[in-house]
Amino acid sequence: MEFEELGIREECGVFGCIASGSWPAELDVPHVITLGLVGLQHRGQESGGIVTSDGDSAQTFKVHKGMGLINHVFSEDNLKKLYVSNLGIGHTRYSTSGISELENCQPFVVETLHGKIAVAHNGELINAKQLRRKLMRHGVGLSTSSDSELITQLLAFTPPLENDDTPDWVARIKNLMNETPTSYSLLMMHKDIIYAVRDPYGNRPLCIGRLISVGSMSGKGKKNSETEGWVVSSESCSFLSIGAQYYREVLPGEIVKISRYDVQTLDVVPRPEGDPSAFCIFEYVYFARPDSIFEGQMVYSVRRRCGQQLAVEAPVEADLVSTVPESATPAALGYAQKCGLPYVEVLCKNRYVGRTFIQPNMRLRQLGVAKKFGVLSDNFKGKRIVLIDDSIVRGNTISPIIKLLRESGAKEVHIRVASPPIKFPCYMGINIPTKEELIANKPEFHDLAKYIGADSVVYLSVEGLVSSVQESIKARQENQNSLKTNKSRVRKIGHCTACLTGEYPVELDW
Amino acid sequence: MEFEELGIREECGVFGCIASGSWPAELDVPHVITLGLVGLQHRGQESGGIVTSDGDSAQTFKVHKGMGLINHVFSEDNLKKLYVSNLGIGHTRYSTSGISELENCQPFVVETLHGKIAVAHNGELINAKQLRRKLMRHGVGLSTSSDSELITQLLAFTPPLENDDTPDWVARIKNLMNETPTSYSLLMMHKDIIYAVRDPYGNRPLCIGRLISVGSMSGKGKKNSETEGWVVSSESCSFLSIGAQYYREVLPGEIVKISRYDVQTLDVVPRPEGDPSAFCIFEYVYFARPDSIFEGQMVYSVRRRCGQQLAVEAPVEADLVSTVPESATPAALGYAQKCGLPYVEVLCKNRYVGRTFIQPNMRLRQLGVAKKFGVLSDNFKGKRIVLIDDSIVRGNTISPIIKLLRESGAKEVHIRVASPPIKFPCYMGINIPTKEELIANKPEFHDLAKYIGADSVVYLSVEGLVSSVQESIKARQENQNSLKTNKSRVRKIGHCTACLTGEYPVELDW
Amino acid sequence: MEFEELGIREECGVFGCIASGSWPAELDVPHVITLGLVGLQHRGQESGGIVTSDGDSAQTFKVHKGMGLINHVFSEDNLKKLYVSNLGIGHTRYSTSGISELENCQPFVVETLHGKIAVAHNGELINAKQLRRKLMRHGVGLSTSSDSELITQLLAFTPPLENDDTPDWVARIKNLMNETPTSYSLLMMHKDIIYAVRDPYGNRPLCIGRLISVGSMSGKGKKNSETEGWVVSSESCSFLSIGAQYYREVLPGEIVKISRYDVQTLDVVPRPEGDPSAFCIFEYVYFARPDSIFEGQMVYSVRRRCGQQLAVEAPVEADLVSTVPESATPAALGYAQKCGLPYVEVLCKNRYVGRTFIQPNMRLRQLGVAKKFGVLSDNFKGKRIVLIDDSIVRGNTISPIIKLLRESGAKEVHIRVASPPIKFPCYMGINIPTKEELIANKPEFHDLAKYIGADSVVYLSVEGLVSSVQESIKARQENQNSLKTNKSRVRKIGHCTACLTGEYPVELDW
Amino acid sequence: MEFEELGIREECGVFGCIASGSWPAELDVPHVITLGLVGLQHRGQESGGIVTSDGDSAQTFKVHKGMGLINHVFSEDNLKKLYVSNLGIGHTRYSTSGISELENCQPFVVETLHGKIAVAHNGELINAKQLRRKLMRHGVGLSTSSDSELITQLLAFTPPLENDDTPDWVARIKNLMNETPTSYSLLMMHKDIIYAVRDPYGNRPLCIGRLISVGSMSGKGKKNSETEGWVVSSESCSFLSIGAQYYREVLPGEIVKISRYDVQTLDVVPRPEGDPSAFCIFEYVYFARPDSIFEGQMVYSVRRRCGQQLAVEAPVEADLVSTVPESATPAALGYAQKCGLPYVEVLCKNRYVGRTFIQPNMRLRQLGVAKKFGVLSDNFKGKRIVLIDDSIVRGNTISPIIKLLRESGAKEVHIRVASPPIKFPCYMGINIPTKEELIANKPEFHDLAKYIGADSVVYLSVEGLVSSVQESIKARQENQNSLKTNKSRVRKIGHCTACLTGEYPVELDW
Repeated sequence: MEFEELGIREECGVFGCIASGSWPAELDVPHVITLGLVGLQHRGQESGGIVTSDGDSAQTFKVHKGMGLINHVFSEDNLKKLYVSNLGIGHTRYSTSGISELENCQPFVVETLHGKIAVAHNGELINAKQLRRKLMRHGVGLSTSSDSELITQLLAFTPPLENDDTPDWVARIKNLMNETPTSYSLLMMHKDIIYAVRDPYGNRPLCIGRLISVGSMSGKGKKNSETEGWVVSSESCSFLSIGAQYYREVLPGEIVKISRYDVQTLDVVPRPEGDPSAFCIFEYVYFARPDSIFEGQMVYSVRRRCGQQLAVEAPVEADLVSTVPESATPAALGYAQKCGLPYVEVLCKNRYVGRTFIQPNMRLRQLGVAKKFGVLSDNFKGKRIVLIDDSIVRGNTISPIIKLLRESGAKEVHIRVASPPIKFPCYMGINIPTKEELIANKPEFHDLAKYIGADSVVYLSVEGLVSSVQESIKARQENQNSLKTNKSRVRKIGHCTACLTGEYPVELDW
Repeated sequence: MEFEELGIREECGVFGCIASGSWPAELDVPHVITLGLVGLQHRGQESGGIVTSDGDSAQTFKVHKGMGLINHVFSEDNLKKLYVSNLGIGHTRYSTSGISELENCQPFVVETLHGKIAVAHNGELINAKQLRRKLMRHGVGLSTSSDSELITQLLAFTPPLENDDTPDWVARIKNLMNETPTSYSLLMMHKDIIYAVRDPYGNRPLCIGRLISVGSMSGKGKKNSETEGWVVSSESCSFLSIGAQYYREVLPGEIVKISRYDVQTLDVVPRPEGDPSAFCIFEYVYFARPDSIFEGQMVYSVRRRCGQQLAVEAPVEADLVSTVPESATPAALGYAQKCGLPYVEVLCKNRYVGRTFIQPNMRLRQLGVAKKFGVLSDNFKGKRIVLIDDSIVRGNTISPIIKLLRESGAKEVHIRVASPPIKFPCYMGINIPTKEELIANKPEFHDLAKYIGADSVVYLSVEGLVSSVQESIKARQENQNSLKTNKSRVRKIGHCTACLTGEYPVELDW
Repeated sequence: MEFEELGIREECGVFGCIASGSWPAELDVPHVITLGLVGLQHRGQESGGIVTSDGDSAQTFKVHKGMGLINHVFSEDNLKKLYVSNLGIGHTRYSTSGISELENCQPFVVETLHGKIAVAHNGELINAKQLRRKLMRHGVGLSTSSDSELITQLLAFTPPLENDDTPDWVARIKNLMNETPTSYSLLMMHKDIIYAVRDPYGNRPLCIGRLISVGSMSGKGKKNSETEGWVVSSESCSFLSIGAQYYREVLPGEIVKISRYDVQTLDVVPRPEGDPSAFCIFEYVYFARPDSIFEGQMVYSVRRRCGQQLAVEAPVEADLVSTVPESATPAALGYAQKCGLPYVEVLCKNRYVGRTFIQPNMRLRQLGVAKKFGVLSDNFKGKRIVLIDDSIVRGNTISPIIKLLRESGAKEVHIRVASPPIKFPCYMGINIPTKEELIANKPEFHDLAKYIGADSVVYLSVEGLVSSVQESIKARQENQNSLKTNKSRVRKIGHCTACLTGEYPVELDW
Repeated sequence: MEFEELGIREECGVFGCIASGSWPAELDVPHVITLGLVGLQHRGQESGGIVTSDGDSAQTFKVHKGMGLINHVFSEDNLKKLYVSNLGIGHTRYSTSGISELENCQPFVVETLHGKIAVAHNGELINAKQLRRKLMRHGVGLSTSSDSELITQLLAFTPPLENDDTPDWVARIKNLMNETPTSYSLLMMHKDIIYAVRDPYGNRPLCIGRLISVGSMSGKGKKNSETEGWVVSSESCSFLSIGAQYYREVLPGEIVKISRYDVQTLDVVPRPEGDPSAFCIFEYVYFARPDSIFEGQMVYSVRRRCGQQLAVEAPVEADLVSTVPESATPAALGYAQKCGLPYVEVLCKNRYVGRTFIQPNMRLRQLGVAKKFGVLSDNFKGKRIVLIDDSIVRGNTISPIIKLLRESGAKEVHIRVASPPIKFPCYMGINIPTKEELIANKPEFHDLAKYIGADSVVYLSVEGLVSSVQESIKARQENQNSLKTNKSRVRKIGHCTACLTGEYPVELDW
């Protein structure tokens, strides 16, 4: 089901680009960033921003930000004003509406003694309050409530800039990373460099792509094709539309320096001994676009495996398997294939519904979800349906869908959910309904099938989800381990399942 | 593939609503029409309009029109101004942009000696030029280029209104129908009545729904539930979201009078002896939403049969069947099922791309379609793909898709098109690229597979399409014929295939 | 006082332009019309429109209309689309707000058998209702409530266009003029001709200007400078900004044909025997810009004479004379000069107040007019003021001004109004408050000074106004009469004073 | 002449309001601030902002800012969101356009350890660069280029907030004042207090008003009427429209604390021994609204005296005196009165011209100023005109006006300028054209009359201006001195004439 329905949402996407060669580059950097952000639009749809640097002096950063979808914020005219040099970073995010909230839009720019720096950030600092207080105790006023400003001021503030020497940005970034363990994937731009940083737990995604000449994209010549520049993005799904090849992930704790010449690892900040990495498992389940690659695997494949696993865990005697379009389709196909039932469409979406600004009166409000879906009744009249959804968070949208299907002739409706129930809040960058709103914490959860009007309902187990996610990672790792033994111990792979289990990757009172 | 890609587009959707009982009705008429139009948004996305009547006097029609999507045009405030009485009609359409084109927006309203009338129209009068000339020869100036104004003035003009008696609107509508055989599905509102009219050939769709109390929608009580009002719509897919039940189609040539009390057939204007009906076959193939019902069958089912038929006509040795999302999916599932190959997704859509206002430079333009789609490469690496599309009109979008798939590892890409090639212009309400732009009329068509870079490409045959469409209609008809014999002769079922075959349902120089 | 205060407003301004020579002309026609309309903006501020003709075929009229001020409606981009040929006409008007009212925007365009015609109109047809009924009885539907559409359809409709010969537009215009005596100054465009017409009573203004090469505007060379084109406008004040010279007025009843070559009188439709002309006297008092020329005299001069006359009719012992800025200033200066008192400013305007969209609460509403004015108290503390206003219509704005002046130290405040009280509605193009709202019809009028809080208040007499207006016209006429005797008898000069006296120039049930 | 013409412009206006009594107050604070800002709109027209405080906690400041005029930025809906308590401050300013510049809009808000503070500021810190550098050296990043942020961070930063005790804001403000001598009039809001501060030189204006119950505004009861609250504003002209009485000026160097209970002077920071005050003399000449009061005198009166002085310094034999409307009118009336010539209007303004977005072509560009003015030729044909302007800065607008007058029949045109030529840049808050653009620094200045086409041109002398400004201040002072002797030595009155003389009130390398 779509994000708005569920009420859980990713907060941000970040994207950076540096063109190779000298300026003016053949590559149209603001344009590439815009398209890159369009490719990350599912991660945040309420505002966008791009900052470009003039490279050498860091004195003339160009900034454009606005409320709304990327296509709306960036017009041809706005983009023209951003053409200054070979590099820039961008951001797309959620935020409460209202123009004054424009102030919270990223990237955040401040002028320091050594020129301007810009920061774009995905995640949420687990100890933001303490860090804000610390800065304010030193007399720094904070003009917004965003972590992005906080990070920027922290980078500028400590250690003090006692003289006019160029600051050691890597030391400052490491200093920041020592002050806050998670969660952040961030881009920092200064002069002609973009620093790409992922927190030691790797909680939010970040990966690097190589821009190659478009003509050379086809066939085997790829490897040898000329590098036109580098991009760095929350998700690899944004690469195809700009002619970039997937290069690699930024590793947990890694500080990468991207210049017009190359991509260098400057340092890798380790986690405390014994702590596994903690990539957000809900990126697989829900947030990421299915064509993105995390940890060497395609998100779509994980979702299909979740469906297969669900078929193993919770089979049902039925006539057909279907999906709540569109996000649950991979799991539904996996389920159908595993249990040998036909995959059939029972709902179609009206893609023009969008956000409705009209307050419906009581009669129309009762119709609710019917506005979004059409019913393909001929496909299921008199049949028993297994309907796969990717998540049931608040439980208030699946119920009218079941009602619709029954009224249109479904004989039975069995719900299978391709992820476990969400029970706990996230403090690391995901907006989740309050604990009280979560269906899994309500008394009705004990007889959920009755509550939502289904013949049966089963969620995927946490173990099932984790194994669907880790299966192929482990297979690959074991493969590699047979070659190089000791690294694997350091890089203990784990995933953050805090919202499902309440086990957070770090102490909350950090 | 989506409409914009193909370059063929429906021109309009019409929707009307009358609340039962006295005013103020419980039913929120302008709101219902708005939601109804949102359900028809796929038939026209560039402007919308609603006219409501105050019922008795027909002096205070309220009108709101605007450019853009329905959700954009109708705000809460705009709707408030439309609350005057129990009835109204609305329209959604394509049009060239520019605010002055607002004048061409429907419904069209004129004041006559007997009060105001409003007309909303889907279709295109095959002899519009002659009719315009005729009116102008009598000294009537026409202020727009729309058929809607033309129809309105024709209804007002002949026969002359010599005195102040209430005019015989049915006679006037019949008079209009005698002057122009096709194509039109139209709604005309006067005082407290909506007249719903379909041309004798039934070229454009029109159907009636019954608004029932929402509480009573569930279960078996439906049949007995109270009628809250009547709606009339281009497609039945708009009924679910407003709590309406499908009632019946308006028949070819039928003039239906809808009042707050009931629905009455006033007359049925016959076709010339021997002429079959000529419902546009592309409504099935392409325009209509899959959950709409035409001629007793769901559009989705026809599309799936087209896929099945295509599997029979053009099988191919391959590893998987897939779709160009989302419109070709029913055909792809039908094809996959018929030939026993697995159905697998190979592309995912970026639903935020929308209309891009930014002019891409050369490098980015080359990437083209990649902006719209993500590639699910893990699903098909090293595999032979049968890719189903619903239509290939100009041939310029399928080609980059094939390239994307190959570059991402597809071993073979076979294209199967679930409709025949379009070769001829439509004069009955569909905007089709010029004859020169149609790929079927180009020299490259003779080796289309090579031109688009596919391993093979086959279109569905005209016969195959027609049989997919008519199969179940005929079955049902034969069923009925065994009961009542003579009606079937009159109602000879046919479909307009003019764009495929050049055989138009009426003489073009009518 | 400004228009909004008084609640009476002009309805429209019209402007046309034809460039000499062949196309593409050096002269930028749409641009000239836009600037011309800006110069007429005081006559209507709620919408604007321009139509340009491609000249020969009259098939490709270009139209742009919009709500708001001319500068807002016509952007660079919109103007570009209007470049088609040497000629066009434009319009600025009042209208109730709301986008659907865009339909009432002028110029109005219809297609006739002989190509398109466009009509722009200032005035109000005194028998519009009967004419509408007449057209509708013949079956012509009217799509708007504007007189402009009515005129256009009347021009197209009678006599019938029985064959395809080019119609005799002059005969049609004369036919129209015989059907309706007043009030209209109108422009009609067909192919490459603009017809400029003023009703036989000359109720609304219309004058012609000659565009000359800008370089040649200086000094004595003027007369011989090259004619670059012709313009026709409601007021001559619009000429300076476009480099046009005042040429002459269109006479009452005159039909002028303007082509790229010259300006020709085609006919002059006479008034009934004995009827004087009836130019609206409130154009002098209030609507027109002070630098416009009517009947050979500058509006400013008339207003100053009204002030002088008022000093004669209603002198007062006081210390200073002042004005309600800005429209009453000419009268105030005239009054001050005549009675020998110093002219002193007592109020200054806040020109940023504009239309306020914020609903003030009670406390702020009480402050009312104080938002618009600042008080120059040092200029009048302890002094006796004669405050000149141009008109007191509803009496609700002068009262708080007097209160302000008193509170700021004025010893006495005497109001002198440079026009007579308005008592009757206008049916000829001016929007006047209802009879009940007019202060002159209220009981309070009998002790107006007390009601508005003034020490005394006197209006100019009707005779005083008429003589201020006609004095120099008559002087000039007598001058001419000594030369050519008989014309003067035909051209009996009068002015419409209906709103002051109730004596309408024509029977109201025409 | 208007500001845009001259190219010199004020940068800002500030306005604050506190309602007496407890919350919810009868007084509508956001509304009062909005109207107050409308009254200061002439000081800045490109953006506006209001911040309201919830009073006690200082945690929920509400902020609304936007580009454009105040009436445009603040809608009913926006104001509603600002209703939180008894107090707020607002700002209106110039800025380069572009939405990203929204960041520079004031008031500026930061969160400190002790809650939020908001700052609104008029002026320009003469040593802003050094102060920025100082802060940045300590590691504070600055996110905008505005002095407002700089002031805010300086207030928060020093001395360091070592513990959580409430900071001594007065000490911090004094600390700031010791770091920067001029120029600033600023409002700082924290919790339920507004601090109003004027720099020791008093370079920018600031004054206090008392809100009284509207009913009690009339007559003698005023003094005793109930205080409804306090306002503080750049100019007193904003008081009338909100029902406030002028209370007093904030003195140079004074720190005033305004609470819901009263207005207290907390301290007065002195100037260096011997330095006179330095109120900007151009506030009198040009920026301020004529009804504002500075240093005990009305701006209008000073302007009239300038005209009188000019008549003494530069008489001319002529027939009439006139003005370039509207700003030069007080001086023109003063000149006319002094030299005994009649005051006559020769130009009228088209108030709808506004900012034109259409690029005129060459022909229309030549017409230039004619778009803005109409010519009242009947008033001056064959006459010798003395035309008073308030300032000639670049010399490019007066020239076409002279040309217009000559072409319309003026016999002679003598220009008299009611202020001295501007020759030097301002570093204290006024935007002046570059030195090269100033006509006074060009070679043509030596024969200015010829350059602009006048018969003669004379500027007012610096001494003449200073004496026109100081005359009545000195008279009043001497009056007071006879009573209390020693204060006058401390409060040595002077005015900043730097732009005319190059003598700046403080060293520029402060």
